[in-house]
Amino acid sequence: MRGKSKICPHRAECHIGIDLLGSEVPPQELLKAIIAFRPALKASILLTVLGTDDLYQKLGMLPDGIVFHAVSEMITMEDDPLYAIRHKKRSSLYQGLQMLKERHLDAFISTGNTGALMAGSKLLLSTLPGVERPALLTLLPTRTCDLAVLDVGANTSYKAKHLVQFAFMGIAFQRSRGITVPKVGLLNIGSEARKGTPELRTAYEALKEKSDSSSFTFVGNIEAREVFQGGVDVLVTDGFTGNIFLKTAEGIGMVILEELEIFAHEKDPSLKAAMTNLRQHLHYAEYPGALLCGVKGIVIKCHGDATTQSVLSSIHSAARLVGHRFLETVNAF
Amino acid sequence: MRGKSKICPHRAECHIGIDLLGSEVPPQELLKAIIAFRPALKASILLTVLGTDDLYQKLGMLPDGIVFHAVSEMITMEDDPLYAIRHKKRSSLYQGLQMLKERHLDAFISTGNTGALMAGSKLLLSTLPGVERPALLTLLPTRTCDLAVLDVGANTSYKAKHLVQFAFMGIAFQRSRGITVPKVGLLNIGSEARKGTPELRTAYEALKEKSDSSSFTFVGNIEAREVFQGGVDVLVTDGFTGNIFLKTAEGIGMVILEELEIFAHEKDPSLKAAMTNLRQHLHYAEYPGALLCGVKGIVIKCHGDATTQSVLSSIHSAARLVGHRFLETVNAF
Repeated sequence: MRGKSKICPHRAECHIGIDLLGSEVPPQELLKAIIAFRPALKASILLTVLGTDDLYQKLGMLPDGIVFHAVSEMITMEDDPLYAIRHKKRSSLYQGLQMLKERHLDAFISTGNTGALMAGSKLLLSTLPGVERPALLTLLPTRTCDLAVLDVGANTSYKAKHLVQFAFMGIAFQRSRGITVPKVGLLNIGSEARKGTPELRTAYEALKEKSDSSSFTFVGNIEAREVFQGGVDVLVTDGFTGNIFLKTAEGIGMVILEELEIFAHEKDPSLKAAMTNLRQHLHYAEYPGALLCGVKGIVIKCHGDATTQSVLSSIHSAARLVGHRFLETVNAF
Repeated sequence: MRGKSKICPHRAECHIGIDLLGSEVPPQELLKAIIAFRPALKASILLTVLGTDDLYQKLGMLPDGIVFHAVSEMITMEDDPLYAIRHKKRSSLYQGLQMLKERHLDAFISTGNTGALMAGSKLLLSTLPGVERPALLTLLPTRTCDLAVLDVGANTSYKAKHLVQFAFMGIAFQRSRGITVPKVGLLNIGSEARKGTPELRTAYEALKEKSDSSSFTFVGNIEAREVFQGGVDVLVTDGFTGNIFLKTAEGIGMVILEELEIFAHEKDPSLKAAMTNLRQHLHYAEYPGALLCGVKGIVIKCHGDATTQSVLSSIHSAARLVGHRFLETVNAF
């Protein structure tokens, strides 16, 4: 690891790795934003940025609290996930996971190839006891609370038992945020118990049976239309449906913001005040990335086209999860 | 059929049946709105409203162009679809479909039990040649065009061949709207050909093979986030995913409108101008219901909690589909 930092990695309270490669944001631009953002973080947080050697050569001195880890390979969005993980061991993605495994890092953030990040996490970190498949969890703002939605893209095929495991990971996540008895719902196309696929019906019965006023409350099936009204802490779904759900919300949010911006620019500059609020609620690109739940390590995946803001939000998220001992909470559940 | 109308049913250019029962809107309220709306329609359009006998007793004289068809049974949202269709033959839903089959109606609009409407349509009207499963099609506004999305809720299980059939129904629908070479996309979680479920991958290959510059263009996989930017005329998906997609869009739309309304009320009354535009783009409850494609008859399903406006928009839709000979277009395709 190159670079210079006054914080010794072994003394840092929280050591976060950030993969600068694989995103649509140029690595130097991302690094510039991280450097500008560094003073907003606690001094006890150490950031290790992973990038190519030529980027390192171009760099001047890095500020306190940031070190550079130079790599000689890169996993691209086009790479086959399994092949890439097996053969590109000098890539930023592989190296970051390796550092997490060896406890040199407490958390790792990547904007790269989702499949490779998942395959690498399963291979290097392995899954937590009772978890067969990791899931991507994202926090979504609703009218009344922040909702944990999972899986938003890790598994396109699934069985009922996986949905139940996702529910328990979501519950542990919300507990680490201070919600002691989270409300859990199943994303479905109607509220009646018989709605949806056979897997959803089986998961419904299993969650209903396990629901217990002291650990979590199962509120049943939730229609996508109702989700944003709030009242649910954990929304359980498969990776295909969850991804469609999340991206639809993002897509509508983007179109509305753009339309309002045009209107505000042309007709009503005072509208800009309303938009600041709305942007915070809708512009999911500014929200932290998704947490890869169920592996023995804190791994956060940002969109490939993530704005710099999303990566910066993820640093805050990662620090919070480390501080709240998220892994221990999931493990103890 | 009771009631009095100066238009003889046999001379009406377009005869539309409307089921007053099964929606969350009280039948008398829906009827009142239809009566108020009647003058906005062409004189050659005849509306037959289907409701219970006791509602008929309370009615005064109906205006020209509306007749009342009294029924003695009702299919509720809780009824098992197949059982209801087999045993409630005096219900408004069954009677409406029967009238459509016997060509007493050109189109039928219902806000009732979706499963019963679908089962009844398949049973009474039967499917068009080459169509194994009917699909619910809805028209969605995007930045540049009106997009036909199907299936939005008829089939929760499906095979690749059904997706291909949905694509062809969507193409025929857009042709009846004057788009001669529609652009067709598959709703998926990434744009690459290998993304999604095995069914999606097979459908992708089949559509790519059939794509032909003279009849339709297959534009490949479309992510939910990109859909609202426009550029696609037909979006193909299964009934589960399509329903989640549609209801997520509705849910976000509702929350945004409500937030903006509060802001406009409190701080910026001038915002109301922007909201009228936005409402038309977002408030899907005001959009026409979904067309049940692939059966030998024009059947439109409005949400169970449809606003009256949605039913009225559906009357316009139905009249347009009859006028443009939609069924002949689908059949000829």
